Amino acid sequence: TTPYSLLILPGDGIGPEVMAEVVKVIDWFQANRGMRFDVSHDLVGGAAYDKHGTPLADKTMARAQEVDAVLLGAVGGPKYDDLDFSVKPERGLLRLRKEMDLFANLRPAQCFEALADFSSLKREVVAGLDILILRELTSGVYFGEPRGIHDDNNNPENEGGRVGINTQRYTSGEIRRVARSAFELAKRRGNKVCSMEKANVMESGILWREEVQWVHDNEYPEVELSHMYADNGAMQLVRNPRQFDVIVTDNLFGDILSDAAAMLTGSLGMLPSASLGAKMANGRPKALYEPVHGSAPDIAGQGKANPIACILSFAMALRYSFDQGDAATELERAVERVLADGVRTPDLMGPEGGTPVSTSQMGDRIVAAL
Amino acid sequence: TTPYSLLILPGDGIGPEVMAEVVKVIDWFQANRGMRFDVSHDLVGGAAYDKHGTPLADKTMARAQEVDAVLLGAVGGPKYDDLDFSVKPERGLLRLRKEMDLFANLRPAQCFEALADFSSLKREVVAGLDILILRELTSGVYFGEPRGIHDDNNNPENEGGRVGINTQRYTSGEIRRVARSAFELAKRRGNKVCSMEKANVMESGILWREEVQWVHDNEYPEVELSHMYADNGAMQLVRNPRQFDVIVTDNLFGDILSDAAAMLTGSLGMLPSASLGAKMANGRPKALYEPVHGSAPDIAGQGKANPIACILSFAMALRYSFDQGDAATELERAVERVLADGVRTPDLMGPEGGTPVSTSQMGDRIVAAL
Ligand SMILES: CC(C)[C@H](C(=O)O)[C@@H](O)C(=O)O
Ligand SMILES: CC(C)[C@H](C(=O)O)[C@@H](O)C(=O)O
Repeated sequence: TTPYSLLILPGDGIGPEVMAEVVKVIDWFQANRGMRFDVSHDLVGGAAYDKHGTPLADKTMARAQEVDAVLLGAVGGPKYDDLDFSVKPERGLLRLRKEMDLFANLRPAQCFEALADFSSLKREVVAGLDILILRELTSGVYFGEPRGIHDDNNNPENEGGRVGINTQRYTSGEIRRVARSAFELAKRRGNKVCSMEKANVMESGILWREEVQWVHDNEYPEVELSHMYADNGAMQLVRNPRQFDVIVTDNLFGDILSDAAAMLTGSLGMLPSASLGAKMANGRPKALYEPVHGSAPDIAGQGKANPIACILSFAMALRYSFDQGDAATELERAVERVLADGVRTPDLMGPEGGTPVSTSQMGDRIVAAL
Repeated sequence: TTPYSLLILPGDGIGPEVMAEVVKVIDWFQANRGMRFDVSHDLVGGAAYDKHGTPLADKTMARAQEVDAVLLGAVGGPKYDDLDFSVKPERGLLRLRKEMDLFANLRPAQCFEALADFSSLKREVVAGLDILILRELTSGVYFGEPRGIHDDNNNPENEGGRVGINTQRYTSGEIRRVARSAFELAKRRGNKVCSMEKANVMESGILWREEVQWVHDNEYPEVELSHMYADNGAMQLVRNPRQFDVIVTDNLFGDILSDAAAMLTGSLGMLPSASLGAKMANGRPKALYEPVHGSAPDIAGQGKANPIACILSFAMALRYSFDQGDAATELERAVERVLADGVRTPDLMGPEGGTPVSTSQMGDRIVAAL
């Protein structure tokens, strides 16, 4: 059989450290589960800018289009804060999402039993939490035109004389395809979808609501669908997150709501994500996997980073790109066991203590548990 | 002395019930503190639509421009869900905000000691919480043009054939004036401002960050200023909300983040807000006061609503419109005492029990405590 092709883009900050642990896991699956991976490495974000003057070289972009899956660490850091908007590290990531057309961003928020006391929320509110936020990732205000900062000098009332513009723009087709993903995912979970927007103040939100409802009524009437305003959604996520199964929302609301949801689980260092596009000729979706956390420049290079989010992102790759659901579950169980044994990177170290480990020791423990 | 003029707009759902309790409080201050109020009542939202076919009659709008302060209950309800966007109840509220130019929306999130166990967050995370979210209220994607839903029939790739558009638009002047309010408020509190946007993906966010920084550097260098991406902000509000003092952010982020923050305090039924504009000829700011909660149609008319948010909104009116800070504090203390005595509307009834009361009994208890 042909090997699975992987492009690894560690990126900036803690990206390279956590990705090194994923490589150990990949090696384990090659050695012990008869899988073959054809792995290439390249640069993205600030690391790519330092070398090529752009946060994503065309060659890297082309390679990303060819492989079965891209694994990304994290991008960004204070070193790049003053760069022009067009070459900021984030633009590399946004280019990958846009050109690979990765419209469906899956962000599971699960609370691991061993970490239930670690959340800022009460145990009884988050224990057993298992929700999935599906964020539209290729459209909306992230990519809409017109955009930019312009002079507004003819307006004497505008002290400062500038205006900043972004455009929230969604087509019905963009909404329908992500809605379909939401219903498909819900069928394999709790069979419930909650769609979030601000249809009470935004016309794009009205279109969102109508198109999600249309897909439901015409194609998935058996899945339970509800609609919620995004402000109420933020509130309900804090009040009682277990009322949800799958949440589907747009690019910007998804960015904010998924970060709030992430924090419910106690540590951002635990949460993986998958960004999926249309199926390629080989039947696999275009796909990029990355932890929800950022590049954490403050702790980079110190062996303090938690590699679990990145390792669980690889588990999602096994499941969604390679149809290796059993292997994915095996990896997830290994992570659970290590956590249950009290093994803790600094971000997971709560008042109840545990065995402190470094990034690389955490990777070793997970491989040992496999 | 001339009386203070008030326009009371109870609105829809629980609005009339909670506003009836505010009227009791107003009467108490007239009878016991030598204040005089000239109170008029009118319709807004669905109630106005039912009578006039518009969610805000021109006559009401004109009156709102004249009075010292508007007190609003809540707008909206399922009865109005199928109305055209232009006459939805929310449009009445948005018209008031826009035409009165109420750019500074103050949303304090305070955790009352008696309710600290009531939050879904752990007591040690929220006890003593006292932050202020300052939301820009007259611009951004709420009001930006172009906007609407259009046909997109010439685009064969767009299944469904429609496109929904909204525009996020901020001028430097709009940002500067709300930034000034933030720094002024911070000076009377913890002297710290955190500004939130998505400058990493939105140019309007870059302008926001630059202009807030400009106001800081040129006019308020003594106030501590930090910047945070709004997704991280949502996360930090859940993780450790007490790190903040004043948060300043745009209309849409403010809508979402303030609802998340509201939930930290345990009950939305507790939280007031003030929306302030420029100073009028008499030196008072244009002002509208309203609870953060909505019209709660599910419990309307049953005496279950908590009137405290609306009563505390009137306390904000005493402070910000009438310069009656002592009276405002007196009212806030009365609310605290009633809560400390265990008096509870249904939304405040936790496992630890308490004395159950109706909306109107809660109002009576607060007046008695005054
Ligand atoms: C890094 C940034 C561009 C990105 C986003 O805003 O989408 C991040 O916050 C995320 O959620 O993946
Ligand atoms: C009712 C609605 C228009 C309003 C808003 O979105 O601003 C509400 O959610 C609020 O926060 O005051």
